[in-house]
Amino acid sequence: MDLKQIAKETSKTLISYLTFQAMRTVMAQLSETDPPRALRLHEFSRRERIENSESYLRALFKEDQALAFRILTVREHIAEEIAEFLPEMLRTGIQQANTERRCEQLERMTQLDPGATSTHPEQDSTSEE
Amino acid sequence: MDLKQIAKETSKTLISYLTFQAMRTVMAQLSETDPPRALRLHEFSRRERIENSESYLRALFKEDQALAFRILTVREHIAEEIAEFLPEMLRTGIQQANTERRCEQLERMTQLDPGATSTHPEQDSTSEE
Repeated sequence: MDLKQIAKETSKTLISYLTFQAMRTVMAQLSETDPPRALRLHEFSRRERIENSESYLRALFKEDQALAFRILTVREHIAEEIAEFLPEMLRTGIQQANTERRCEQLERMTQLDPGATSTHPEQDSTSEE
Repeated sequence: MDLKQIAKETSKTLISYLTFQAMRTVMAQLSETDPPRALRLHEFSRRERIENSESYLRALFKEDQALAFRILTVREHIAEEIAEFLPEMLRTGIQQANTERRCEQLERMTQLDPGATSTHPEQDSTSEE
């Protein structure tokens, strides 16, 4: 397991995700101050895939430079504000989700009719597990 | 801008992403120790959308319980190992990407013929590139 590579890819994914959140934020602001422009940003974001945030921004700079600069500012602001909370939220979130999945499965294993866990009941009518 | 909500959604996205990385890690391990099972996990992961990690895991628990437990363990391990590095990687990554986008745009603005910034050439017949 190459943890360094995983950290690098995760960071890249995070940057793309925060670019999406920044775009949503700017779109929400525009829908109050300049609805036609909000609509244009909406249409643009349907055409250009924001999952690849840097290509998306390059394309937006050609379409509406001011909006592109604004999204850069907003994503940097969001990152500054939430970065420090992420490690704890991530750790707690995964521990909690794992506990939930484990409990669900343990419940399933203990409560089910033994035969019901088989996906091929015809092959095993007694028990499975 | 609801930063608390953004942080929450970002954390959820991160958990899904690390589940994907855990699945990839387990698949890589299996492809060396148990290739047919690696293939089954591959096929399973094409059918079930891992973007929704908790539904994916619930479905995997029904298909191959041991693998599902293993992915829980691996994703928690990855989270523990990389969490503390994420804030700095995120901040630096966004600052760097923003600088790159700004520089690219400033270059574009200063190198282009002034007429080219117009999106309506009919209003400016001097030049367009």
